[in-house]
Amino acid sequence: RTMYYGKADVYVFRTFAKPLTGVKHIPESEFSERDNVIFGLNAKVALRGKKFLTSFTEGDNSLVVATDSMKNFIQRHAAEYEGATMEGLLAFISERFLEKYDHIESVEMSADEIPFEPIRVPADSGFEQSRLVYNSSRNQYATATVRVDRKANGFEVVEQASGLKDLHLIKVRGSSFYGYIKDEYTTLREETDRPLFIYLDINWKYSNPLDATGANPGNYVAAEQIRDISRTLFHQMDSRSIQQLIYHIGCRALERFPQLQEVSFESNNRTWITIVEDIAESEGKVYTEPLPPYGFQGFSVTRADIEKEGYVSTAEGRESKV
Amino acid sequence: RTMYYGKADVYVFRTFAKPLTGVKHIPESEFSERDNVIFGLNAKVALRGKKFLTSFTEGDNSLVVATDSMKNFIQRHAAEYEGATMEGLLAFISERFLEKYDHIESVEMSADEIPFEPIRVPADSGFEQSRLVYNSSRNQYATATVRVDRKANGFEVVEQASGLKDLHLIKVRGSSFYGYIKDEYTTLREETDRPLFIYLDINWKYSNPLDATGANPGNYVAAEQIRDISRTLFHQMDSRSIQQLIYHIGCRALERFPQLQEVSFESNNRTWITIVEDIAESEGKVYTEPLPPYGFQGFSVTRADIEKEGYVSTAEGRESKV
Amino acid sequence: RTMYYGKADVYVFRTFAKPLTGVKHIPESEFSERDNVIFGLNAKVALRGKKFLTSFTEGDNSLVVATDSMKNFIQRHAAEYEGATMEGLLAFISERFLEKYDHIESVEMSADEIPFEPIRVPADSGFEQSRLVYNSSRNQYATATVRVDRKANGFEVVEQASGLKDLHLIKVRGSSFYGYIKDEYTTLREETDRPLFIYLDINWKYSNPLDATGANPGNYVAAEQIRDISRTLFHQMDSRSIQQLIYHIGCRALERFPQLQEVSFESNNRTWITIVEDIAESEGKVYTEPLPPYGFQGFSVTRADIEKEGYVSTAEGRESKV
Amino acid sequence: RTMYYGKADVYVFRTFAKPLTGVKHIPESEFSERDNVIFGLNAKVALRGKKFLTSFTEGDNSLVVATDSMKNFIQRHAAEYEGATMEGLLAFISERFLEKYDHIESVEMSADEIPFEPIRVPADSGFEQSRLVYNSSRNQYATATVRVDRKANGFEVVEQASGLKDLHLIKVRGSSFYGYIKDEYTTLREETDRPLFIYLDINWKYSNPLDATGANPGNYVAAEQIRDISRTLFHQMDSRSIQQLIYHIGCRALERFPQLQEVSFESNNRTWITIVEDIAESEGKVYTEPLPPYGFQGFSVTRADIEKEGYVSTAEGRESKV
Repeated sequence: RTMYYGKADVYVFRTFAKPLTGVKHIPESEFSERDNVIFGLNAKVALRGKKFLTSFTEGDNSLVVATDSMKNFIQRHAAEYEGATMEGLLAFISERFLEKYDHIESVEMSADEIPFEPIRVPADSGFEQSRLVYNSSRNQYATATVRVDRKANGFEVVEQASGLKDLHLIKVRGSSFYGYIKDEYTTLREETDRPLFIYLDINWKYSNPLDATGANPGNYVAAEQIRDISRTLFHQMDSRSIQQLIYHIGCRALERFPQLQEVSFESNNRTWITIVEDIAESEGKVYTEPLPPYGFQGFSVTRADIEKEGYVSTAEGRESKV
Repeated sequence: RTMYYGKADVYVFRTFAKPLTGVKHIPESEFSERDNVIFGLNAKVALRGKKFLTSFTEGDNSLVVATDSMKNFIQRHAAEYEGATMEGLLAFISERFLEKYDHIESVEMSADEIPFEPIRVPADSGFEQSRLVYNSSRNQYATATVRVDRKANGFEVVEQASGLKDLHLIKVRGSSFYGYIKDEYTTLREETDRPLFIYLDINWKYSNPLDATGANPGNYVAAEQIRDISRTLFHQMDSRSIQQLIYHIGCRALERFPQLQEVSFESNNRTWITIVEDIAESEGKVYTEPLPPYGFQGFSVTRADIEKEGYVSTAEGRESKV
Repeated sequence: RTMYYGKADVYVFRTFAKPLTGVKHIPESEFSERDNVIFGLNAKVALRGKKFLTSFTEGDNSLVVATDSMKNFIQRHAAEYEGATMEGLLAFISERFLEKYDHIESVEMSADEIPFEPIRVPADSGFEQSRLVYNSSRNQYATATVRVDRKANGFEVVEQASGLKDLHLIKVRGSSFYGYIKDEYTTLREETDRPLFIYLDINWKYSNPLDATGANPGNYVAAEQIRDISRTLFHQMDSRSIQQLIYHIGCRALERFPQLQEVSFESNNRTWITIVEDIAESEGKVYTEPLPPYGFQGFSVTRADIEKEGYVSTAEGRESKV
Repeated sequence: RTMYYGKADVYVFRTFAKPLTGVKHIPESEFSERDNVIFGLNAKVALRGKKFLTSFTEGDNSLVVATDSMKNFIQRHAAEYEGATMEGLLAFISERFLEKYDHIESVEMSADEIPFEPIRVPADSGFEQSRLVYNSSRNQYATATVRVDRKANGFEVVEQASGLKDLHLIKVRGSSFYGYIKDEYTTLREETDRPLFIYLDINWKYSNPLDATGANPGNYVAAEQIRDISRTLFHQMDSRSIQQLIYHIGCRALERFPQLQEVSFESNNRTWITIVEDIAESEGKVYTEPLPPYGFQGFSVTRADIEKEGYVSTAEGRESKV
């Protein structure tokens, strides 16, 4: 049956954590390093184990780790983590929980990055990045989930996912949507050149969960890189639908990162509605926010897809077939 | 693989829908009727089928039902629905989708109630309920989910759940929390009489999915009744933890409604922190909002639990064993 | 110049505060008592005084009351308050600030009620109100603001307002909107019987600010009563616009409560759009959420208005002219 | 009395509007141009005039411009605007309202920018800014307000303000807070080197409201420049309080832009609480989110302040005294 309990909204901000360096460079992205001057996250933990049953059925708290203690546990162990990634931190703390409390059978942890953007300030020779002041961002953020189970001979990562949430992108022209089913329920107009406004949530899984921790940074995939592959593909493709766009983003990500087994998407269509088509002496138009209903797509791309497509992963980043 | 697409935030407000009457009365609740003068919901639909694959891999839209058309489909069919429940409406529309579009293999629909509370206004002889003016409520609301698959010999409901979300309740005294593990991570103080502030999300499943539609109202369980069982148990029990409380709410619900096979919970602990313990000539205290981290519990109760517990469902509402 | 500083989101929950009883009964409302088992509010304080200038210009903190201390000050004094209203609590604490810190010239406090709704539970003889369990509500809530200045001979309330926020009401029929200006910018259709969905924020001011504290409850106006006047007028009137509706709500409130000098409104129009006009064998229709833009109105009604209108305040609650 | 009505949440997205170029360069900022490929805003309009009184008192709609028509009016005139700033657009549309409808005495418009950040994509020679794909941002955004009144001899701008909202910045070290009043309400610990997390809302007013329109871009102040002055001062100063920081940001802004008469602030303190002070072999610490109460400051800086301080506005951007 379903049975777990835990603590959520455990905010952890660690300053001057180990920087993330040494990731593989890809042609779609300028990303090379996360300085981790502020390593910020909102963490969640859920514990599972048969011994927790009597806390429900009998109100017997004798084996209950108070959720307040879990918060302390997470925040204090965040100080001991020696790595540079959320995935690594979650795996580290999950294992500490299993070590400390024998009656826990499984620990599931997840976290949302609280992103802080670098800013540029004047210096003696032009502008440079401040290592003191950061902009707290409410835009897209990385996510991570891990589940570690107690096994006969130790602990095992049985689930792992990394992600990027709330990437909101608009392409002002070059997208189309036509050729769909027309019937008595159709009121949408076909478009050969529409602005396309999308929300993307993206998740990726490694073939080897240990690669997610960043212990070997050359095998780590930074959320910034997935973000940049998404932006670059959106920029380059004249897409016929969001469906088509996310399929190709997924293929490209798998091509660049052979260590990934799957990339999956939940996308939204948030495209504006057109108010003024023609503006004198301008190529522009006037648009406005649409009605609340929005379209969405869910799709996962696997290595089998890119083998079929003829994509080739190359160290040189040769343009792949789109 | 994961592959679906659909439309969300499809708001439907139907006025003067068929009232829901004829539900079984239970001792914990005064609920007897939903007037459905405003039947309001926020619906979501997701379509699945192998034939949608080329819309992703090739940008081929020829079998795509535009999500804008799905919205029209839902809103127009809401006018044709002759029943009185969200569950019934979702099943009705899901089947219409499968009828209309041969290439759809499966339709999943879910909805959140947009609740409108009755208000009382002066009338010739005292106050009575207005049938014209309602209060739009942002409090707890009912939910429903259904998945209908195309089968060789027709359509089949393969998943069904009903729910109640965001029930926020506080009991000002009579709850305790003590006896849990104390170690170097423990800073929480034991409490023998604390105020307890909980958030509850509750889901229930029928043994026979058709009972969820309300076609036979005597077998239908209203979200208001689950709400009232929760409130009543919270009022009656001196609970030792939220774990214990939700277990007994689940048992009571299964006792009252033998047509249910399972009741499950996701609960939060949002208990205040104490600021002033003693106020002269008062039994009161001063509290404030806690830090962001909150505890949560997930648990499902099944018929096997109440058989073991010795609960007996009675028409008279005799107090069950707690 | 603008110069103040303070603390906001100071949550105060006091249990078993003095009940509010003894308010005048009015025909539009069943309200007679607030039990104050949970007296909950979110408070804000701002301090002003010329002596704070050097804290800005020179970073001189020697006269700065830390905002953390203000929070403590508010929460601890909430325990000492012996009255039954938010207005009274804010005035009480504001005066304590002026007493304690000589260099403060003016204290402005405001608060939003955190409402907890009573629930009904089974008892020996039918259902009754629980005095233990309450429903935390996210619906309409009362507000209060007070500003107290230090004067040569003591403290003076120089501003006071009471309010009700986020009252969301819909009337399913009986409202019209026609006869407005038609020109090249007009696309709205005239309606002689539309559903009307309104958001109301209402503020009222007493002629004598001391009446706002509830020290003499017979002169106090409960937010619940303003809520009920609004609901009743909406129910009774076939309004031609929100403008007309709020004008009459204001007049009625001033008629019922001669101690008020002004009632003011900020209203929104959130009316649905119609999707299906005709449903077989039903008087109902199907509607949906509108596009984001919403109309709003701001208006204040004073005693001069009801004198002109010929309204008469009566103890019997005789129907006034509308 | 208060009397107005209007329309809010009128979203306008105009593509390929005139770029903003030609603003004065300042040493604190790299800003030189806003491309206006997407000129996005959420606008609000309120109309005032004595002739609207009978729409309230009598439900007489004959002089009512429907708020739906106002939305159309705004969206269509957005297509005709030939400038490059929100301030200019609001003034332009406000005057069109007064021209079109004789009975309107005053038009107040305000808008929040909907920001779209440029992104970088690979090009033949390295990375460059995409002019097709933008990131929709939920971070800080510009604001503008204007009120235009009908006068005997034409229209007059009687109020104007430009602003920047929700700038959230953290400085990881170098800020202090000590020397404040200690008494029985004090529980806060003094800090000589704390991380400081601030929220800033900033408003500025021009001596000549016409400069706000950007018609002469050399006199226009871009919100990006006020943002960069704020970041740079925060980076450079070892502040003793937010009060001191905002005072100096205001002085610097007035120094750089002699066309401004006033800069005002509403700031918040959102500083974390410390969990782990010492981490082996690291200069970092672990922090977490604070309790809900937050400190705030309101302050306006005028030209008189910088004259007193001895600030000198220079074209060369010589470092001013801090």
